[in-house]
Amino acid sequence: MPVELRAGDAGFAEAFDRLINDKRETSHDVNAVVAEILEAVRRDGDAAVLAYTKRFDRLDLTAETLRVTADEVEAAYAACDPDLLDVLELAASRIRAYHERQLPESFHYTDDAGVRLGSRWRAVQAAGLYVPGGTAAYPSSVLMNTLPAKVAGVQRLVMCVPTPDGKLNPLVLAAAKIAGVDEIYRIGGAQAVAAMAYGTATIAPVDKIVGPGNAFVAAAKRQVFGTVGIDSIAGPSEILVVADGANDPTWIAADLLSQAEHDTASQSILITTDAAFGKAVMQAVETLLETLPRAEIARKSWADHGAVVVVDSLDAAVPLVDQVAPEHLELAVDDPEPLAEKITNAGAIFLGRHTPEAIGDYVGGPNHVLPTARSARFSSGLGVVDFMKRTSLLGCDARSLAGIGPAAVKLADAEGLQAHGLSVSLRLGKPGE
Amino acid sequence: MPVELRAGDAGFAEAFDRLINDKRETSHDVNAVVAEILEAVRRDGDAAVLAYTKRFDRLDLTAETLRVTADEVEAAYAACDPDLLDVLELAASRIRAYHERQLPESFHYTDDAGVRLGSRWRAVQAAGLYVPGGTAAYPSSVLMNTLPAKVAGVQRLVMCVPTPDGKLNPLVLAAAKIAGVDEIYRIGGAQAVAAMAYGTATIAPVDKIVGPGNAFVAAAKRQVFGTVGIDSIAGPSEILVVADGANDPTWIAADLLSQAEHDTASQSILITTDAAFGKAVMQAVETLLETLPRAEIARKSWADHGAVVVVDSLDAAVPLVDQVAPEHLELAVDDPEPLAEKITNAGAIFLGRHTPEAIGDYVGGPNHVLPTARSARFSSGLGVVDFMKRTSLLGCDARSLAGIGPAAVKLADAEGLQAHGLSVSLRLGKPGE
Repeated sequence: MPVELRAGDAGFAEAFDRLINDKRETSHDVNAVVAEILEAVRRDGDAAVLAYTKRFDRLDLTAETLRVTADEVEAAYAACDPDLLDVLELAASRIRAYHERQLPESFHYTDDAGVRLGSRWRAVQAAGLYVPGGTAAYPSSVLMNTLPAKVAGVQRLVMCVPTPDGKLNPLVLAAAKIAGVDEIYRIGGAQAVAAMAYGTATIAPVDKIVGPGNAFVAAAKRQVFGTVGIDSIAGPSEILVVADGANDPTWIAADLLSQAEHDTASQSILITTDAAFGKAVMQAVETLLETLPRAEIARKSWADHGAVVVVDSLDAAVPLVDQVAPEHLELAVDDPEPLAEKITNAGAIFLGRHTPEAIGDYVGGPNHVLPTARSARFSSGLGVVDFMKRTSLLGCDARSLAGIGPAAVKLADAEGLQAHGLSVSLRLGKPGE
Repeated sequence: MPVELRAGDAGFAEAFDRLINDKRETSHDVNAVVAEILEAVRRDGDAAVLAYTKRFDRLDLTAETLRVTADEVEAAYAACDPDLLDVLELAASRIRAYHERQLPESFHYTDDAGVRLGSRWRAVQAAGLYVPGGTAAYPSSVLMNTLPAKVAGVQRLVMCVPTPDGKLNPLVLAAAKIAGVDEIYRIGGAQAVAAMAYGTATIAPVDKIVGPGNAFVAAAKRQVFGTVGIDSIAGPSEILVVADGANDPTWIAADLLSQAEHDTASQSILITTDAAFGKAVMQAVETLLETLPRAEIARKSWADHGAVVVVDSLDAAVPLVDQVAPEHLELAVDDPEPLAEKITNAGAIFLGRHTPEAIGDYVGGPNHVLPTARSARFSSGLGVVDFMKRTSLLGCDARSLAGIGPAAVKLADAEGLQAHGLSVSLRLGKPGE
């Protein structure tokens, strides 16, 4: 059964701390196996990728058939339910519109000292998206991971998706087509990450790799980090709902279950000002679980990690929310904006009684790749800047160097870095000072 | 001796690739020792921090003397050369002015579908700066690491600096005072990183840890990543100078040596259109090495990792620069801006003959914490956003949910996530659809 807590009760702080810091993930140490796969791909390129694909996906490919052809993509697209294609197009256009507002601005100016200064944003040259195979191959994730890269201006966008026994969800290919993915390879696991990071004869390397994956993929991403950039390693999903007593308990129960159904390690927490409402939500969860297809997963998540916390006021919820720093935060109250304003740590905030988190998973516009495991304290959802990098620009002429140069020489000397000082003082016409 | 290459020669591509991909760092596997230290601090708090400080820094502290007092900071400041304090103030004001332009903008809008959308930036609540002890305790690094946090609006800024045998560079404390650091602790190594990440009775935990350090500090930062945010792990310094034949060879030689003097693992490369000029620079390097205090380090770096590459034209340098993705790029030519525009990958670009890289290390304004080891392909120098995080906001009312909700239900069902769909359809008044 989920935990029931009341803020202010004896032992509450410890119990709440335990609730949110419980390690929910089972960690599999696959580092050694993954290191071996990465090394093999680095050394043997395509041959290693093909061998691992045969072994893990039972799929006999050649360098020529690694890549999904344009015809296959078209055929998959044509085979999709047209209504679903419309939905993907709607989602894509809303995601694109939101992310276009994230484009950072470069700036250039000359300051009072006559120094030219600038900051210039550019897209990374090539990015790779990992898409898990099987049940976790979500077309919505393809859109969420690729569209920020397209908006950023990434010129070459690669996707790897394993097709165990040759099976591939046509909606995933349709989403890739809609998003504008340039190359798709039917490979997965650590070998796919290695191919994108190091490159092979068939697959040119990329500069950044994003996307969710199993323990092998996560370990591979950690290990290639540095050779390429990576996004954060996603943990199990979380939702925190702050609700007063004026909500329909069934609506809120469905919201809690929408994260619980992802994974038995997911966490759903309700903070409410109304103890009776909290009980009603718990009851509604049980009722919904009776008919939910993924009830087994959701029930375990809710029982192991779920919680209902009763607080005296909405304001009393604020420090608890900041402590959790939830991936998803719903504010199911009449006037959510002032409450949102008081909260510092959350990946995404869903405002009001008519904004279930699932809207943001699909068609809201903001990204659904969000910081988990309390990392919203210091990190952000996936965005356009994750596919860009910033270069600083600095320009002096003889006059402006004469103005600020002597200070640099003094500080360089104080730090014992004489060549630093010399590179400035020579240009000031006073070598060796 | 440094490598001499000519673009277009047989074997050039391989030789250049070898040059820039040579692993320059010696890696020390200190992960096991560090894991032990982290665990001890997590378990025993202050007691463990004090024990390690006694062992590694030969310093007998108590929980009460861990923190550097305000009086000590004032005394250190008063003991500094007033000229150097002026220089630090100048540097701080220029760094502050530049970084203020980096503050990202939040946005809020309502789209045609009636959906409220937003993106909100907030500073992390607390940040910690690690400052190495001994010779690598650079006051300029204190400014570069703390001022972006202050500009971001970080409310609590902590600094840890080891004081082996009780010794501490007063300029480091002066820089901390000028930057506005709130708390300073005289501890270092993995134990300092652990104290900032997990907190102890004396040191409250932070959300983000930045700053350079030795192998133990780097390993500790990697291991606490997830519990807190970290900056990138800095590799050895690099400079790439693109110069035509119209420069003073001694100026360029000093620039190359200004990185070479950092570390024997540093890398300095000159790309020039003028072979004779390249020879003259190599000669000037030898001459400068005769009198340079850190000649031993610089000579080894230049001999082991230095290079002079001759190209036919400045344009021919562009793809080589992008391949290197240098931390520091100098464009020592008459009209550097158009050339800079052609280059995609560089941490910082220094424009023209009168902008030695060292200006940017101290008083230019942009940050000197920059991506190394080719990571400028996908990452950026330290900036204000590194101390902030973004929250997305989404708000529907009944009407706008009726507009975009059905699409979400369709996609949720297609992905087999029925609770997701249910959380929307219940609110549409059509449960179970």
